[in-house]
Amino acid sequence: MSTGDAKRQALVIVFTGHGKGKTTAALGVILRAWGRGMRVAVLQFMKARTSNYGEERAAKKLGIEMIPLGEGFTWRSEDIEKDKAAARECWELARQKIDSGQYDIVVLDEMAYPLSYGWIPVEEVVDALRRRPKGLHVIITGRDAPQELIDFADLVTEMREVKHPYRKGIKAQPGIDF
Amino acid sequence: MSTGDAKRQALVIVFTGHGKGKTTAALGVILRAWGRGMRVAVLQFMKARTSNYGEERAAKKLGIEMIPLGEGFTWRSEDIEKDKAAARECWELARQKIDSGQYDIVVLDEMAYPLSYGWIPVEEVVDALRRRPKGLHVIITGRDAPQELIDFADLVTEMREVKHPYRKGIKAQPGIDF
Repeated sequence: MSTGDAKRQALVIVFTGHGKGKTTAALGVILRAWGRGMRVAVLQFMKARTSNYGEERAAKKLGIEMIPLGEGFTWRSEDIEKDKAAARECWELARQKIDSGQYDIVVLDEMAYPLSYGWIPVEEVVDALRRRPKGLHVIITGRDAPQELIDFADLVTEMREVKHPYRKGIKAQPGIDF
Repeated sequence: MSTGDAKRQALVIVFTGHGKGKTTAALGVILRAWGRGMRVAVLQFMKARTSNYGEERAAKKLGIEMIPLGEGFTWRSEDIEKDKAAARECWELARQKIDSGQYDIVVLDEMAYPLSYGWIPVEEVVDALRRRPKGLHVIITGRDAPQELIDFADLVTEMREVKHPYRKGIKAQPGIDF
């Protein structure tokens, strides 16, 4: 993007909070961006490599790069050191994508979890965001985003749970939840 | 959808609040649903018929029915009676879409505005939702969703503004905001 275009400014966006809609909002941005022919990468920190959710099916059809990195590592506490190492490895890949200069938008889906656990140092992330290629939007989702990240971000929305169907015993719905 | 499938249950979803991400989250659901081959209609209560935003370009390419209904009628107060009539007309079309049985998901984007203004009676909307075809998910977005709608809905998230780039003087960004 040209530096002369005053209207264009790359944003760091954080969707956090305990309500539904964080990843979903990131997917909505992707749809818009795809509609405009922008180059998008989505790194999914919590999605198993074997999953085949609605968003993955859509991404495949649309030619959007969507990379499921994790095996839900933050839910498995049998071997925390292994989980920490996995989180670091995911972050290294994310940093490569950010630095590559090949994208208009990079989504770090559910990265707030390993950040809030301290498995990925937030200073490192903020530093990488600060040095990122000009014009690159970065979206980070997940509960409990650390304050340092919120302080650095341009746009932060907290998705607050008002009502959740799981509380009524309704299961996650295909096409809606995944 | 078969009534015997206990896992499937149609939801009424409300994305409300003053933060960014309401329409965007609805678009994310659409992307997932499209990935699964579901039938989706999006009625945009506040989008001008002449607009050509990222989501509209994407919808056109994907074959998703996206209908911009309004001309931003709630922002023009020169002739409130005319705006009210326009809102009613939009709601009639929305009700036809809901009743048609031709969709898996109907999105009523930014309908919370005319509802909160009292231009569309909320009892009528809740009644139409209650009688809707089995298996139809309905998503309603917009600030200040009325309490009656929240009471009836299955899933409600409030998008709370923590930080907004407009406050720093940053303009809306193509691919991100529209």
